[in-house]
Amino acid sequence: MHGKAAVLVEKNRLETWDVEVRAPEPGGALVRTILGGVCGSDVHILTGEAGEMPFPIILGHEGVGEITQLGAGVSTDYAGVPVKPGDLVIWSPIALCHRCYSCTILEQTPCENSQYFEDASKPNWGSYSDYAWLPNNMPFYRLPDHAKPEAIAALGCALPTVLRGFDRCGPVRFGDSVVVQGAGPVGLSAVLVAAQAGAREVIVIDGAPARLEAAVKLGATATVSLDLSPEERKRMIYDRIGRQGPDIVIEAAGALSAFPEGVDISGIHSRYIILGLWGAIGTQPISPRDLTLKNLTVGGASFPAPKNYYQAMQFAARVQGDVPLAQLVSHRFGISQAAEALQVTKTGVATKAVIDPTIS
Amino acid sequence: MHGKAAVLVEKNRLETWDVEVRAPEPGGALVRTILGGVCGSDVHILTGEAGEMPFPIILGHEGVGEITQLGAGVSTDYAGVPVKPGDLVIWSPIALCHRCYSCTILEQTPCENSQYFEDASKPNWGSYSDYAWLPNNMPFYRLPDHAKPEAIAALGCALPTVLRGFDRCGPVRFGDSVVVQGAGPVGLSAVLVAAQAGAREVIVIDGAPARLEAAVKLGATATVSLDLSPEERKRMIYDRIGRQGPDIVIEAAGALSAFPEGVDISGIHSRYIILGLWGAIGTQPISPRDLTLKNLTVGGASFPAPKNYYQAMQFAARVQGDVPLAQLVSHRFGISQAAEALQVTKTGVATKAVIDPTIS
Amino acid sequence: MHGKAAVLVEKNRLETWDVEVRAPEPGGALVRTILGGVCGSDVHILTGEAGEMPFPIILGHEGVGEITQLGAGVSTDYAGVPVKPGDLVIWSPIALCHRCYSCTILEQTPCENSQYFEDASKPNWGSYSDYAWLPNNMPFYRLPDHAKPEAIAALGCALPTVLRGFDRCGPVRFGDSVVVQGAGPVGLSAVLVAAQAGAREVIVIDGAPARLEAAVKLGATATVSLDLSPEERKRMIYDRIGRQGPDIVIEAAGALSAFPEGVDISGIHSRYIILGLWGAIGTQPISPRDLTLKNLTVGGASFPAPKNYYQAMQFAARVQGDVPLAQLVSHRFGISQAAEALQVTKTGVATKAVIDPTIS
Amino acid sequence: MHGKAAVLVEKNRLETWDVEVRAPEPGGALVRTILGGVCGSDVHILTGEAGEMPFPIILGHEGVGEITQLGAGVSTDYAGVPVKPGDLVIWSPIALCHRCYSCTILEQTPCENSQYFEDASKPNWGSYSDYAWLPNNMPFYRLPDHAKPEAIAALGCALPTVLRGFDRCGPVRFGDSVVVQGAGPVGLSAVLVAAQAGAREVIVIDGAPARLEAAVKLGATATVSLDLSPEERKRMIYDRIGRQGPDIVIEAAGALSAFPEGVDISGIHSRYIILGLWGAIGTQPISPRDLTLKNLTVGGASFPAPKNYYQAMQFAARVQGDVPLAQLVSHRFGISQAAEALQVTKTGVATKAVIDPTIS
Repeated sequence: MHGKAAVLVEKNRLETWDVEVRAPEPGGALVRTILGGVCGSDVHILTGEAGEMPFPIILGHEGVGEITQLGAGVSTDYAGVPVKPGDLVIWSPIALCHRCYSCTILEQTPCENSQYFEDASKPNWGSYSDYAWLPNNMPFYRLPDHAKPEAIAALGCALPTVLRGFDRCGPVRFGDSVVVQGAGPVGLSAVLVAAQAGAREVIVIDGAPARLEAAVKLGATATVSLDLSPEERKRMIYDRIGRQGPDIVIEAAGALSAFPEGVDISGIHSRYIILGLWGAIGTQPISPRDLTLKNLTVGGASFPAPKNYYQAMQFAARVQGDVPLAQLVSHRFGISQAAEALQVTKTGVATKAVIDPTIS
Repeated sequence: MHGKAAVLVEKNRLETWDVEVRAPEPGGALVRTILGGVCGSDVHILTGEAGEMPFPIILGHEGVGEITQLGAGVSTDYAGVPVKPGDLVIWSPIALCHRCYSCTILEQTPCENSQYFEDASKPNWGSYSDYAWLPNNMPFYRLPDHAKPEAIAALGCALPTVLRGFDRCGPVRFGDSVVVQGAGPVGLSAVLVAAQAGAREVIVIDGAPARLEAAVKLGATATVSLDLSPEERKRMIYDRIGRQGPDIVIEAAGALSAFPEGVDISGIHSRYIILGLWGAIGTQPISPRDLTLKNLTVGGASFPAPKNYYQAMQFAARVQGDVPLAQLVSHRFGISQAAEALQVTKTGVATKAVIDPTIS
Repeated sequence: MHGKAAVLVEKNRLETWDVEVRAPEPGGALVRTILGGVCGSDVHILTGEAGEMPFPIILGHEGVGEITQLGAGVSTDYAGVPVKPGDLVIWSPIALCHRCYSCTILEQTPCENSQYFEDASKPNWGSYSDYAWLPNNMPFYRLPDHAKPEAIAALGCALPTVLRGFDRCGPVRFGDSVVVQGAGPVGLSAVLVAAQAGAREVIVIDGAPARLEAAVKLGATATVSLDLSPEERKRMIYDRIGRQGPDIVIEAAGALSAFPEGVDISGIHSRYIILGLWGAIGTQPISPRDLTLKNLTVGGASFPAPKNYYQAMQFAARVQGDVPLAQLVSHRFGISQAAEALQVTKTGVATKAVIDPTIS
Repeated sequence: MHGKAAVLVEKNRLETWDVEVRAPEPGGALVRTILGGVCGSDVHILTGEAGEMPFPIILGHEGVGEITQLGAGVSTDYAGVPVKPGDLVIWSPIALCHRCYSCTILEQTPCENSQYFEDASKPNWGSYSDYAWLPNNMPFYRLPDHAKPEAIAALGCALPTVLRGFDRCGPVRFGDSVVVQGAGPVGLSAVLVAAQAGAREVIVIDGAPARLEAAVKLGATATVSLDLSPEERKRMIYDRIGRQGPDIVIEAAGALSAFPEGVDISGIHSRYIILGLWGAIGTQPISPRDLTLKNLTVGGASFPAPKNYYQAMQFAARVQGDVPLAQLVSHRFGISQAAEALQVTKTGVATKAVIDPTIS
């Protein structure tokens, strides 16, 4: 069997390949891609900002697919739910080793031996492809019966990343006031989670009116435009929250200048959670005294654990009827149109672009 | 009744005053000072680095004293332990308001209305003084019967500060590897806590051989000299711990340059806890990407809660027989010698200096 | 000034008194009662099941009121929000001492010296009354501008109790499956919190169809009737959740037989949270081995902290537009009709009864 | 290659077999047993109290061994520490599946597919044997260079079990007061951990003077004899701790009657942690109201995670010089003397018995 795949053969060189589709190995699964999410990180991988990659690689670490064939010994997903061909699943795109310090002592992801990409000529789980071949040990989870694939794909790996951030740095508590820097997929995920978790204020900062509007639909209680000066932005936030300032600030802008602003905005005894900065390289001046005097905790988080994918899927399925989640998917492209998908993601034209292999 | 007190009448101007000693108010207590700890912050207050102060003030926020008289209605300490005149106590030098956001919602110290100092002409809890007048609502705790005052005073407010840091950022876990930057009272407290809590490695960095030696006596498993280059220091630490790096790094040096070094040294999925930086003013270049790629949490902590004082006292009393805690008190001065006490603290000649009002 | 109050002069003897309304003390506030919630505990107090009480007492520990006068020195609520006469507030009905082991070391409520009731002839914060006189140190919180008093009163102290339970035993995580025993105010609060917090299943057990229906409106994903046998109930729950069983079970029935059933239903590595059992006196046979083999944690929780009242108020205000919260208030009575209010609460006829002092 | 092994061929029928010793599989390791710990659970397995077993099985789930041969691809232990033949290791005797709800969502042990025993005729990790064949995916950890095998073996799986208990139910905090019911290996482990972690009181209850004496050597601050009545025991404990009662009670007696006594002894806002009750079958009368009125959490815990084995090993290695850990190993037996080893464990004659294959 053969299928198409979008292959990055080297930096900035994307090709459409015809690849062999192999039967699953014992413990694995073969999945027909329904939707492959296009992530901002894919753009960084394309341009080389994300560092060296084991080219050639099939892009795509977000996906919803339909089980075509199960490997020997597989009768459930990785949460113990019975599965059969035809069921819809998502997968966690990192295979953990279960035999290193991060895996067995810290119980944290990623691990020292995490494998993110496989050579495009080998069986492969990249989702810009007709089929994803999930190796033994790559966690996949069955969608709840009522889940809409678009709702699950809409926030991609951004939603698990946000859940991981709260795992590392503590959850949103009922009554917390939260500020989110940036309203791309990570920021929107943070808005959605904070609003559902019972924050009393969810204030989002961005420069694009359309993104701010999307944030309001997902639960933001107020928006702040980047057109204002940093001082005006801070004043607006403090006027609304009160003099103690935000309990949680979330960096989801991926811009260097957001970092010192986030430290400055953060309230007393608060948390500043930094997510999704793969592209922002460089330093910013930070005063350690700002951290001690405010009892401020600054936590970075990346690379969701398998459970975060499961939780994100369950959460999206639960709220898909209450908030316009599926509608966030603004652009669809075929596998051979991957370059265009990456382009609308890079420019921010798309709220969320997906690869839909049925488009030719 | 009258007593002596060391009063800072303005920046860099210390005087010995004869002050009135008043009976305790209802809910309060009058305490005869046995030992008043000299803290590095006192030096920053003296020089003005700690910012504006409500002069004139009686210095001294650390103390062990003997109850002279209890205010109306007081029969126990703030942990419910029965007390009577003659009992030894410590106190938490911050009166909380119990009616602000930090007090009732966040349950964090300090609070928006915390009072640190009182005018020297009024009843006063400063410990560079013959008597400390503890107002209603200022928590004090009875020493366990077997506790040695010197062992309790040896680490002063540094030990509660360290305990607060672990409260904010999570505790040392059995088997963790810990690096401590600086071996002054805060650093030594961190070494002691980490060692007792079951860390497998407690590596301390300092420039003074005597301090490093003290750290080893309190449980450090290895020492690293500041004479080495930052690269050599990092290599030594990683050679000893392994490639995952330290699980916890503690900033107790109060030096700006320690901040980026601490971020750099920190291991994967680790915590960097910043304590006691009141004197270090300025910024350092920090890369947010270092935080996300390592899943690093950087937490500032200051101003211990009352419980941290209680816990520190209990902890010091428990380990005083196993580690040479009381011996850390290297210098004793009378009230009128406060300037000298501050000088040996500033220069680092003293491991720990205390005011002993019986010295004239 | 005078006002009416429902006074329990002894067990089962309720009277309407005319009481003096005094100006607030410094630090306190005088509040005109808008809605006084009727709680199941009030019934237990009436009948004597709750134990000895310092009769005569004014009933009512739940309330929404309007500030009439502020005591000297009061310009904000206990979360630092500016307040003035005319503002609506709730209050936490327990005054904490801030000087005992629970207050300063454990930071837990209630404390060793908590005061719940005051003699009916003295200034009094009972809410079955025209006015509530809040003493200095009794936390009160201003309602958000958009909050509906009925939505805040609807779940009364049940919602803070549920939030306290999750504080003690850990929160609902995204994707958790939750079973709630009982659909009275505590059970409905648990359903609402679990649903909003992202549980994938919220299954509620009760015998009254109307209560089950209310639970569904608040987010329950399935209902189980008490008409079924315990075996059938367990099978229904496990069929829906899967063989690992519920992650969280909440005891909100107040019935002794629910206790062993809850232990039996609880899943592996799960939590069983027991709330609101003031009335259920007696023992049940429990096997400790059930706890070790399932790694089961059973946690009791009662007496919310002030922050839980604040959080509950904020949470209710946030969701009042999405779920029919205000509509849970099914019955309103004047102060002199308190006996009827308690009766409809006892029989379960009312979803929620309130005292409305404007009814005569 | 061949070796000896103690095989339980059916309930109460122990034989010494000559078994084939095979080379390790890829990912696995072959280990020569130095010390095989005899655990109370082994006695329950022998007598059948632990339930059905897949006979014939090689007994022994505790062990310290020397690496004889590493499987293909193995160059480090499961904490990333380089290993080679000749190194000493311990292992976690449960192979986890990494593909069930407990493994990937709850991140808890044991998992739904945990394998504890393998048929005695197959390669086998039982430690009452000359060699332990560790399959791929069975975590093992290298002993620190200075660790004494006896110190590591002394508390066996009891110490990891205690660490798991604190993981599930929260750690000992500085200044906590702790009561331990029972001074067998689990109780002694709890005493050691609580004392090192900074508890102010560690009170142990047992009937055997020798065990109580051992507890004092490991850090108990007071002992209570079972010869006293339950009322006297409670009074002694409360006299020492104060009226708030113990912050933590640990059930390590494995006796049914200890369960209601533990609930009764537990203090306000406290935790009761139940460990190691495999043998105690039956119920006890418990009042749910005791849990709510005291805000008491009762947590069962069993089956340590791999990290708990690592932490226990590191912790034992750190304290082996300060407390007489190695001396707890009171009896040594050869493989063919396994029945005697189990007998001295059953009767409580031994503090700790071990299998030493060099004894013939």
